[in-house]
Amino acid sequence: MELLDTLRAEVGVGNVLVDADAAAYATDWRERYRGRPLAVVRPGSTDEVAKVVRACAVSGTPVVPQGGNTGLCGGATPDDSGRAVILSLQRMRRVRGIDTANDTMEVEAGCILQQVQQAAREAGRLFPLSLAAEGSCTIGGNLATNAGGTQVLRYGNMRELALGLEVVTAAGDVWHGLRGLRKDNTGYDLRDLFIGSEGTLGVITAAVLKLFPLPVARCTAMLAVASIEDAVTMLGRARAGLGATLTGFELISRECLQLVVDCFPEQRLPFDGASAQLPWCVLLEVSDSESEAHARERFEAVVGAAIEAGCVRDAVIAGSLAQSQALWHLRESIPMAEKQSGKSIKHDVSIPASRMAEFVTGTNAALQAAFPGIRHVIFGHLGDGNLHYNVARGANWNEGQLLARQDDVYALVHDRVHAVDGSISAEHGIGQLKREALPRYKDPVELALMRRIKATLDPRGIMNPGKVL
Amino acid sequence: MELLDTLRAEVGVGNVLVDADAAAYATDWRERYRGRPLAVVRPGSTDEVAKVVRACAVSGTPVVPQGGNTGLCGGATPDDSGRAVILSLQRMRRVRGIDTANDTMEVEAGCILQQVQQAAREAGRLFPLSLAAEGSCTIGGNLATNAGGTQVLRYGNMRELALGLEVVTAAGDVWHGLRGLRKDNTGYDLRDLFIGSEGTLGVITAAVLKLFPLPVARCTAMLAVASIEDAVTMLGRARAGLGATLTGFELISRECLQLVVDCFPEQRLPFDGASAQLPWCVLLEVSDSESEAHARERFEAVVGAAIEAGCVRDAVIAGSLAQSQALWHLRESIPMAEKQSGKSIKHDVSIPASRMAEFVTGTNAALQAAFPGIRHVIFGHLGDGNLHYNVARGANWNEGQLLARQDDVYALVHDRVHAVDGSISAEHGIGQLKREALPRYKDPVELALMRRIKATLDPRGIMNPGKVL
Repeated sequence: MELLDTLRAEVGVGNVLVDADAAAYATDWRERYRGRPLAVVRPGSTDEVAKVVRACAVSGTPVVPQGGNTGLCGGATPDDSGRAVILSLQRMRRVRGIDTANDTMEVEAGCILQQVQQAAREAGRLFPLSLAAEGSCTIGGNLATNAGGTQVLRYGNMRELALGLEVVTAAGDVWHGLRGLRKDNTGYDLRDLFIGSEGTLGVITAAVLKLFPLPVARCTAMLAVASIEDAVTMLGRARAGLGATLTGFELISRECLQLVVDCFPEQRLPFDGASAQLPWCVLLEVSDSESEAHARERFEAVVGAAIEAGCVRDAVIAGSLAQSQALWHLRESIPMAEKQSGKSIKHDVSIPASRMAEFVTGTNAALQAAFPGIRHVIFGHLGDGNLHYNVARGANWNEGQLLARQDDVYALVHDRVHAVDGSISAEHGIGQLKREALPRYKDPVELALMRRIKATLDPRGIMNPGKVL
Repeated sequence: MELLDTLRAEVGVGNVLVDADAAAYATDWRERYRGRPLAVVRPGSTDEVAKVVRACAVSGTPVVPQGGNTGLCGGATPDDSGRAVILSLQRMRRVRGIDTANDTMEVEAGCILQQVQQAAREAGRLFPLSLAAEGSCTIGGNLATNAGGTQVLRYGNMRELALGLEVVTAAGDVWHGLRGLRKDNTGYDLRDLFIGSEGTLGVITAAVLKLFPLPVARCTAMLAVASIEDAVTMLGRARAGLGATLTGFELISRECLQLVVDCFPEQRLPFDGASAQLPWCVLLEVSDSESEAHARERFEAVVGAAIEAGCVRDAVIAGSLAQSQALWHLRESIPMAEKQSGKSIKHDVSIPASRMAEFVTGTNAALQAAFPGIRHVIFGHLGDGNLHYNVARGANWNEGQLLARQDDVYALVHDRVHAVDGSISAEHGIGQLKREALPRYKDPVELALMRRIKATLDPRGIMNPGKVL
């Protein structure tokens, strides 16, 4: 076949995978989507990416960019037509340079997030993006989906962490936009247009990322709270009292913690007695530029005042790094525990803090009314208003029954998100999963503008078709 | 004339100004650009803005959105064809609401920045954007130009301070995008496309802005440093030692300070003796969430260590709010002092911190070689890499001679900015002033993408023609 020969000539025979060699790339991490690609192509440089895209553009072949294949919305999985080329960036994993005086680093899209964090640390700097898949997700995927995670409260999403991009356009041209500047008002913000566009407008091949000073000390605690209202009140107190040292504010339901210790018996619940019966926990983290003692003192002052005021009922403050890691490990084990205990219906939503309690209480009740016995698995980054509002089968359900009602559950939850001015995708993107739901919730003028941008930047429609729009 | 009648019917006779009534809107603040509009139209609501734009779209009439008319690049001044309608947002100055639990506020585009800061403060919150024109510039203009100012180091540009927008498109449709969410990954980032597009893609009519806790204490100091290298070293120390409490890091040359006290004799130089002879000062500000005593203690620890290490030669720490205000007043008086002392050639550039010294030293020398006796008036937000690298006539020049060489000066400075990977517009935008320079420095692929976006979002080319592109 002519295209495959061209691609082999451009990137080398060993970097064009077909059939069984391509299988691992054709299915997403959650095994919800199975595609059938023409081939997987693994270019080794920006120039090769441009050649691959040009060859695909000429033949009208769909291009599906793929990083670590850890996405949760099927955004990196092709359809089953056998026509698409998966463009894997995994060979482009060079840290091109670190500029400590400018607090920036230039990395290729295929760099694993953990590798970037590590390279920054070795240069005495922090690259703050942190999320469960960091051992296998790539910077390119993080950019394409505007990834979030646990440090957004302080450092922002991936969007806020990128200063410049290198992008191969849908025509196979290279935009050299690798600027390392905190301020640049010279025209339209193309950077933020490509970030979060899930590979539908072009291929991000490299980026200049922001670095930060390494904190001198961290302090972590688990707080037991009686209600979402109290958790939101505590968020306001933490923001006011801890300022920008507040780097983590995670909400975890009692059910989530129980699920983790049921699946991983070596882990321990943070509270016992009456506190263990409270419905919610908050995982609070402070990163201090001063000292361990100062971090702890501030922390205790703010948490102490909250306990006195009644919005926090109990607190466990980590006394060592090991204890801090154990608390975070509880939080980070929730997705694995969910996966082990069977398929669930996941919602990645964001809600204004002022309407969070109304949303959770109302939606829980509405779900129980419509789907009696269903289980709520609710956790998330409350500091950013981002909940992973997941739903699992109860004792009276089997997996098939749950998945048969999936679309009804989505509709109920997303309608309620929309009613409180929330978003149906806080940090995972749209991909295939939420593509059909998007027009129901998106302002029609906005949707029309998006379609025009897609049409003008990718007139042949080859970039990741069937995703987002 | 038919269009004017339509506009009068839409917004009321008193809100369509012509001839002498329109004159104040037709000239920019610096009096560099004089336009001749068909009329100034002042709609009072989003719906009226949409009607005005629709009427203009039908007749192919250029629309020039205008806020406080304080821009520095002529972006809000029409050409002299007498065809354009200036669309003034100044009647839309309602604070629509403040949500303290969500730390957001919704404001109309015509709100004066100071009014927004004040409304936030009354609700116990900080809206951090702060710049010299804050008493007259509007939120709409701040958004259209992605305004910067003195707090960007900590809180970001206007882009980072806006969560949602309401926009009237070039077709006169209304995009209702007033989301108050910190995370929302549901498609292309239209918000950031309109922000910074200087009215060339549509008209921003309202926004949801981020609020922050009010700092408990502020601490300000002026530092005397011997070189740009030392100032950059100090920036690194301040970032590491003060973390996110560092809210201001301004560079000021000795010449700037002298200019201020020459123009405003009631102001005092911060240093005397040998320190007064050092070529640079840094204005450092810390905002603390804890206490006055803590702010001062941290501050003194970091500045003390820098003095010991030799990168700071002398320091004046403000002992009272009045002293702090006096130090800031020195900094903020520079633009007025410049204006009083005659026309100057202004450059609003950004440079990676790692190349700042190379840029300043090299450009100063090259300017002296090409234009002997020219004066450098250099100050800016070093914390963001943003310099206002201005040039004034020396004793041996008159104003006419200086302005006659303006284009040569621009070219020399901007070529050097480009050579160190900087930006020719850090925070003021492109407007008319830098429109012709843009293609010289912008990546051609990027420029082509910008043109395609302009063509698809404003196919009739009515939105602020002759600006940016």
